[in-house]
Amino acid sequence: MGSEPRLIEVRKNVLKQNDVIARALREQFRAAEVFVVSLVSGPGTGKTMFLEKTLSVLSQSHRVAALVGDLATENDAVRLARSGAPVKQITTGTLCHLEAAMIQNALAGWDLNHLDFLFIENVGNLVCPSSYDLGENLRVVLISVTEGEDKPLKYPTIFNSADVAVVAKMDLAPAAEFDWHSAYCNIQAVRPGMQVLKLSAKTGDGMQEYLNFLTARREELHTAAAL
Amino acid sequence: MGSEPRLIEVRKNVLKQNDVIARALREQFRAAEVFVVSLVSGPGTGKTMFLEKTLSVLSQSHRVAALVGDLATENDAVRLARSGAPVKQITTGTLCHLEAAMIQNALAGWDLNHLDFLFIENVGNLVCPSSYDLGENLRVVLISVTEGEDKPLKYPTIFNSADVAVVAKMDLAPAAEFDWHSAYCNIQAVRPGMQVLKLSAKTGDGMQEYLNFLTARREELHTAAAL
Repeated sequence: MGSEPRLIEVRKNVLKQNDVIARALREQFRAAEVFVVSLVSGPGTGKTMFLEKTLSVLSQSHRVAALVGDLATENDAVRLARSGAPVKQITTGTLCHLEAAMIQNALAGWDLNHLDFLFIENVGNLVCPSSYDLGENLRVVLISVTEGEDKPLKYPTIFNSADVAVVAKMDLAPAAEFDWHSAYCNIQAVRPGMQVLKLSAKTGDGMQEYLNFLTARREELHTAAAL
Repeated sequence: MGSEPRLIEVRKNVLKQNDVIARALREQFRAAEVFVVSLVSGPGTGKTMFLEKTLSVLSQSHRVAALVGDLATENDAVRLARSGAPVKQITTGTLCHLEAAMIQNALAGWDLNHLDFLFIENVGNLVCPSSYDLGENLRVVLISVTEGEDKPLKYPTIFNSADVAVVAKMDLAPAAEFDWHSAYCNIQAVRPGMQVLKLSAKTGDGMQEYLNFLTARREELHTAAAL
């Protein structure tokens, strides 16, 4: 199509500008010693319930907050606020992903020095968020057992842009006839060596291992920064 | 951001060009008397299994074919070809949706006059495909019972661009504690009067009602065209 090269050029500029803002955010997060975790997945994988459980457990020992992206509604912010943690909703309208500038705007008025962890829940989309750096320290890609074992093969870019994979809704594994070995191998085929955690936010199985993983990664970053 | 107005302008041109091609496709479909159904949903909602069942049952009484979109892999085309129907895979690379030009290219060499139904399975994405007309006669939006009842409220644009909603994986409804009434009301809140079908491609429950619906809609179109 005639207009494609122009579209690609403009998109490159948008991504470049996003990277500049993301770099500034990362520097700001480092200075405040806040560990920033972003969550990406398709719609309905269970990001919000997972984050709800994360905030309620982690807030007992750490200072936590969350930003949550959706095209429409403030529902997720309302759900997450029940944990007692500060939460802000970012509504994107028709935009299919969060961008660094939205994070920057949403953080205005928050003192990051008062936080240990900041969580960012992206719009439910396994494609577009992969291109946008949000300045996070850790990007977590979630798939659920009901989505089929082939998702890593079909959406390789998002697995390549993420740092760790979480297989969610493990409580539904028998009903969905989920094949763990096949899903694990497909993740490794796309991203060899990727760490994969499995859990159920509903039953709590695997949640503590995930939280231990997060706190360990935060410690590692601080130790490295102090050297 | 400085480059946004330019991006929006270029995107408008791309959409305009897409509409021109979609209109040509629709005319071509009408002339060949083929009824074209597109499927949109998030990743892992079960579009492919649903389409697999659709093709194998419908091919007993009608001439059917399918185009199937994914970022990567030919897996879906291989699965769908088991039905005996002609199937072509469209791999989009990093693109998050199908466009009319891709449909046009994929159809080269196929004689549409030999078809009663053509199915188009879009890339798994509840956001981006909503903007791209593919020349289809009917757009079906799928959600599955494991994704939560709130998806229509969070992704209103795709429900507004679709003609009918299908709630899939009903066999998992008890395990997922799915609330049908709530999901139905959320669809109606976004798109009052929208027809909603529920089914399980796995058990076959509701499939015949869906196929009856499709054949009735095809008849309606032909009757209207003959007037």
